[in-house]
Amino acid sequence: MSYQLFIGNKNYSTWSMRPWILLTQANIAFEEHLIRFDSFEPESEFKTEILKLNPTGKVPALVDGDIVVWDSLSICEYVAEQNPEKALLPTDQKLRARARTISAEMHSSFQNLRNFCPMNVEADLAHIGQQLWNENAELRAEVARIDQIWSERPSEDSFLCGDFSIADAFYAPVVMRFVCYQLPISQPSQMYMQKILALASVQQWTDEAKQEQMYVPFDEPYRQNREEYLID
Amino acid sequence: MSYQLFIGNKNYSTWSMRPWILLTQANIAFEEHLIRFDSFEPESEFKTEILKLNPTGKVPALVDGDIVVWDSLSICEYVAEQNPEKALLPTDQKLRARARTISAEMHSSFQNLRNFCPMNVEADLAHIGQQLWNENAELRAEVARIDQIWSERPSEDSFLCGDFSIADAFYAPVVMRFVCYQLPISQPSQMYMQKILALASVQQWTDEAKQEQMYVPFDEPYRQNREEYLID
Repeated sequence: MSYQLFIGNKNYSTWSMRPWILLTQANIAFEEHLIRFDSFEPESEFKTEILKLNPTGKVPALVDGDIVVWDSLSICEYVAEQNPEKALLPTDQKLRARARTISAEMHSSFQNLRNFCPMNVEADLAHIGQQLWNENAELRAEVARIDQIWSERPSEDSFLCGDFSIADAFYAPVVMRFVCYQLPISQPSQMYMQKILALASVQQWTDEAKQEQMYVPFDEPYRQNREEYLID
Repeated sequence: MSYQLFIGNKNYSTWSMRPWILLTQANIAFEEHLIRFDSFEPESEFKTEILKLNPTGKVPALVDGDIVVWDSLSICEYVAEQNPEKALLPTDQKLRARARTISAEMHSSFQNLRNFCPMNVEADLAHIGQQLWNENAELRAEVARIDQIWSERPSEDSFLCGDFSIADAFYAPVVMRFVCYQLPISQPSQMYMQKILALASVQQWTDEAKQEQMYVPFDEPYRQNREEYLID
């Protein structure tokens, strides 16, 4: 029996994107269950559905037989441990520690980026990004830290910790935010972004996000409707 | 060469407490380096010291030879992986997934508990806890979720996932918050709290926190000075 991965809208759900990219890029079979965001109120269809399997009422959640794993980081650890031949964490001890550390850093930090730059794959919000950049010093500090992480790769053409790993799955949604808001970033980090955007898994996620064609008001602080600032 | 663990004030630093409790309770040797909080401004002594080894400027950080691991969760994973004989993650697959999941949940969630109930080992802030409890529905929801986690142990006399694990190290500072603010909790969860408070590592941390006798204004939203609401 293969994994069952429960996710939210691909246009918006950064936390869902992490394990989905990990599994897809590593070519590990799973069944996708997309629970569309209607609202996050207790009575919403979304909450009703996800609460059947995850007591936190959030996506993503991974079901593997009688085991339910929620939280994007523990799903990635679970999948990495169960599929050692995929080396989803580097085998080198130092790179392995770094992959876990920068993933955990993304897991608990960057609150301004989260709050002010929600992922919106189908939109071009460069003008909002410019305004946020000018006004928010804390956001600039977070972008600088991410720039540092992305530019400190083992080599210019490598992923964050050498080969593709959990860390790249964790930063893939961040790349999508940077694209949407056109946040300024160094040349080495731009190269990293291009590397992520070129991944087959990321292109598939992006295509499917654009096909959703669903406007979720509580995830849209900047657009009045779906047609506004639409890419293409 | 043993691990070097850099932490902040024991009276206040929940994130430092997690790996410290893990290492101490598991009887794994480490050298402790306590960097006192003066302020979190860029020019502070604290930031100057910690930035020498951790680019995020935060505690905890673990140094192991030429490897530096920051972030409490990745330190715990690192230590667990390097010391398999200690079984700091359960060996049973289901319990292991649960330990990682509830640790990751604590790592990224419970924002109200974090904001409104900062750890203060030496203080009794029950009157503040009562007021917060009455006024803040989101805090009550977070306490209810923690109560659920603590009461769903494999057995009444077990730790969160059977034997002592990373998950207990992650929830030990939460126990300290619950004691300080006297947040209401079910009988099974009270039993869990007593189990944590009885650990030699937790008693040592608590004793050393009380011996610090240092009042850090930015960690004190409720006390005007150190003598106010002091335990004993």
